[in-house]
Amino acid sequence: MSQAISIFDTTLRDGTQGEGISLSADDKLKIALKLDELGVHYIEGGNPGSNSKDIEFFQRVQKLGLSAKITAFGSTRRKHSVAEQDASLLRIAESGVQAATLVGKSWDFHVHTALGTTLEENLSMIFDSIAFLKQRGLEAIFDAEHFFDGFKHNPDYAVAVLRRAREAGADWLVMCDTNGGTMPAEISDIVSRIRSEIDAPLGIHTHNDCELAVANTLAAVAAGATQVQGTINGYGERCGNANLCSILPSLELKLGYSAIGRDRLRLLTPTARYISEIANVSMPVGQPYVGNAAFAHKGGIHVSAILKDSKTYEHIEPDLVGNKQRILVSELAGQSNVISKAQEMGLDVTSNNDNTRAIMERIKDLEHQGYQFEAADASLELLLRDAFGGLDEVFAVESFKILLEKTSHGMVTEAIVKLRVGQESVYTAAEGNGPVNALDNALRKALLPFYPRINDIHLADYKVRVLDEKDATAAKVRVLIESSDLSSSWNTVGVSGNVIEASWEALLDSIRYALLGMARLESHSGEDALRMRAGVVNH
Amino acid sequence: MSQAISIFDTTLRDGTQGEGISLSADDKLKIALKLDELGVHYIEGGNPGSNSKDIEFFQRVQKLGLSAKITAFGSTRRKHSVAEQDASLLRIAESGVQAATLVGKSWDFHVHTALGTTLEENLSMIFDSIAFLKQRGLEAIFDAEHFFDGFKHNPDYAVAVLRRAREAGADWLVMCDTNGGTMPAEISDIVSRIRSEIDAPLGIHTHNDCELAVANTLAAVAAGATQVQGTINGYGERCGNANLCSILPSLELKLGYSAIGRDRLRLLTPTARYISEIANVSMPVGQPYVGNAAFAHKGGIHVSAILKDSKTYEHIEPDLVGNKQRILVSELAGQSNVISKAQEMGLDVTSNNDNTRAIMERIKDLEHQGYQFEAADASLELLLRDAFGGLDEVFAVESFKILLEKTSHGMVTEAIVKLRVGQESVYTAAEGNGPVNALDNALRKALLPFYPRINDIHLADYKVRVLDEKDATAAKVRVLIESSDLSSSWNTVGVSGNVIEASWEALLDSIRYALLGMARLESHSGEDALRMRAGVVNH
Repeated sequence: MSQAISIFDTTLRDGTQGEGISLSADDKLKIALKLDELGVHYIEGGNPGSNSKDIEFFQRVQKLGLSAKITAFGSTRRKHSVAEQDASLLRIAESGVQAATLVGKSWDFHVHTALGTTLEENLSMIFDSIAFLKQRGLEAIFDAEHFFDGFKHNPDYAVAVLRRAREAGADWLVMCDTNGGTMPAEISDIVSRIRSEIDAPLGIHTHNDCELAVANTLAAVAAGATQVQGTINGYGERCGNANLCSILPSLELKLGYSAIGRDRLRLLTPTARYISEIANVSMPVGQPYVGNAAFAHKGGIHVSAILKDSKTYEHIEPDLVGNKQRILVSELAGQSNVISKAQEMGLDVTSNNDNTRAIMERIKDLEHQGYQFEAADASLELLLRDAFGGLDEVFAVESFKILLEKTSHGMVTEAIVKLRVGQESVYTAAEGNGPVNALDNALRKALLPFYPRINDIHLADYKVRVLDEKDATAAKVRVLIESSDLSSSWNTVGVSGNVIEASWEALLDSIRYALLGMARLESHSGEDALRMRAGVVNH
Repeated sequence: MSQAISIFDTTLRDGTQGEGISLSADDKLKIALKLDELGVHYIEGGNPGSNSKDIEFFQRVQKLGLSAKITAFGSTRRKHSVAEQDASLLRIAESGVQAATLVGKSWDFHVHTALGTTLEENLSMIFDSIAFLKQRGLEAIFDAEHFFDGFKHNPDYAVAVLRRAREAGADWLVMCDTNGGTMPAEISDIVSRIRSEIDAPLGIHTHNDCELAVANTLAAVAAGATQVQGTINGYGERCGNANLCSILPSLELKLGYSAIGRDRLRLLTPTARYISEIANVSMPVGQPYVGNAAFAHKGGIHVSAILKDSKTYEHIEPDLVGNKQRILVSELAGQSNVISKAQEMGLDVTSNNDNTRAIMERIKDLEHQGYQFEAADASLELLLRDAFGGLDEVFAVESFKILLEKTSHGMVTEAIVKLRVGQESVYTAAEGNGPVNALDNALRKALLPFYPRINDIHLADYKVRVLDEKDATAAKVRVLIESSDLSSSWNTVGVSGNVIEASWEALLDSIRYALLGMARLESHSGEDALRMRAGVVNH
């Protein structure tokens, strides 16, 4: 039997310390549901002592009947006070959680500088606070803040802190690399020494300030820690916390531990992407295991080898973590990338020929202008189908106009479009709360009588990237649009010196793609979008 | 004396395999200059055998007189052929470089599957190719592809590959974790074994597929590797290469090695940011050591402690890597953050009072609407100065209008603005190549007679973020604008359901900030922008 590792997720608490991350109580509930599905053992929901939003979360999460233990976070009692009267500890006890994490100082420097008290009083604060939680029937997890820095400066005191927490009844002693500056060899050494000196379940909590949070976590586990604290996508203050999305697959697939189990590991990629949507933080395209490019292949030689055997350039099967392989089309790509992409689309392209070379040239030329097909599969598919298959035109645009006016009374935006659909000419206008929205509304209004299913299509995301910052607002912009219908999602691109023209181009590609029936059912992100729209929390 | 580690940068070669990264020959030259200033020992410029852009780079880079050794990349000769007639090897020899990196197979599976040849022929390919480069007087670096996977499957063959490369005269034997799937303990073990078996300078080349590239590099160095291959910001295929921006400071500041030297380490943050601008890839805000949030503090308790002593929540002094501390203002922040931010601005705010509480409420309210001041220091400063100091109004906007028209002849965009500057009413119009550009032009035209220095102000970057994707083009958008003049740069924010209105708001803040004389000289990013505009490459 492989050794079990307990997974403690703190996305909802330490993760929200990350720059640009802010979660409502609703957001937190949605994320808690997903974390529970993924199979983490502890979900730290927040700090009921400091935040009324978190109190609401703790009340509502109880009704969801999750398997994971919900935990609340707080600090040890204030100096020279009584735990039973500490407002923050009382709120934890009243929050209805099964477990609580208490953070206490273990670095003598911090006791003096930040707390401004004596080493002995700090030990009493820890003892009293843990003892109080145990009296109230809670599982008590002790997070020893700055443990590794503390140990390096004053090992006796750092060990004394852990011992005192354990004497008070702490169920877990968690060693924190709060400032994220410790090297893996030090982690390994210090955890091993604690393991041999203290008989208690140990945990590890690391930060990524040296890009070593994952390595430090794995080093601590190898040295005997059996609880791992981290966040989804590594969210957290400064450089983030240890990234569970990288730790879980390495524990399960590489190192022989059992954490959430291999079956649930397949939920990892959709969970990471869902939470990044809720947190409204875009995922780095190259995020290990779960990123969109984690199994993407660009170099022509790599692609040829991958087509022979995926193992040549993939360290695991992407499916094991719910991700998938992608072949990128770009200037570095050989023709094998284009052929493989076209074959993926079911086009009958079997070998290099003039057509393939011509379309490669066209793609290179467009990429030179600023188009990027790596993130716009649907625009690429339209391009390839035009070249290899021939596509019917669904409508043609004759002209459009936009009028915006801002006065002291507010803002008005109107769009006027003139289209030809089959033999008919359509001329219509619509308002919107922005120029792209007005255009989108006018276009839909014009096409609806001919294509009623246009009502099912939504624009899910809209991104603008300035291509040459040096020329400021006069620079070229690239617009990427993600669209979805009830069952799938697709991405299109437009490039122009004018943001409206670039948006219009991506909008047209998006609608053409859908009306030509090219939106496919199996898209993962489409399913996610659907789940999001359907909503997962009842309240 | 601390041990010297040789730094081999492959940003220009392996880095360009990253998704969305594409560099022109000009871009590559600019980056090479920066890498040379930083003090890396090798700059791998590209693959002259596969890419005409790279041939141009190698020709032009010779005229720059860099201290770093410029190296070209290529593969071993084709199977059953002669090295002296191999077009790719000949191009390397003719490219004028001092050193070459040859990649060869060291995993038996790859020899069979990808190359389709025998183990013995692969050894001959390696021997002949290295020997050819040595005959031509080049330093030869052998990159053993998939070395760790190869060693795990067939250690004898992997070792035989290294031995054969060394017999042919290879100056460096570099062990590559090409698929990025190896764990640090394995790296440590395998490098130690090679170290004891083969007497040659060893190098390490890792990929980040398990978020362990940095840890694996450090483990290899601890086990005896003295060359580190990596890229700036960790650019590279899939999840990227080992990130030199994280490796260099840990080697120098934490582990006692000497690589580029501590003085040059201070160039790390500006170098990383400059290269991200050239590569047109935004840096993760929480990137270790060099990211904008690497030393940013958000939680109120952390901020109080930081104000007492930075060491409480910073693992190194940010200045050592050319970065700086930032205090974030956000909903999690205590009043100490606002006070500290106001003091940073030189405002006379010394303690909590009604004014501080009122402005905290206002910031919370605006953040709730979607504003984000963490990335818009100038808008925040305007807000704080309005609250604490009182600001004169430089102009007032009465109305604006935008007209866009797209016909078969092209696109026309006009903006009309009506302002009041002092006692005068100004009513003017301008064209632009997009609505924001037209507005910007009209605004400048109206203000120029009153504020001639407006000509020195440029919009350096323009970002649009959709705040609630679920509502598509009708969602709220946040616009972030970065502006710069000759000596500094500043960031402003606007939020609205209408992208034009949001842009207008950020634009007004940007110009107000500059005209009120608040753009400061010491801004780092401003200096970078200046250097970029001045241009560093003569051709």
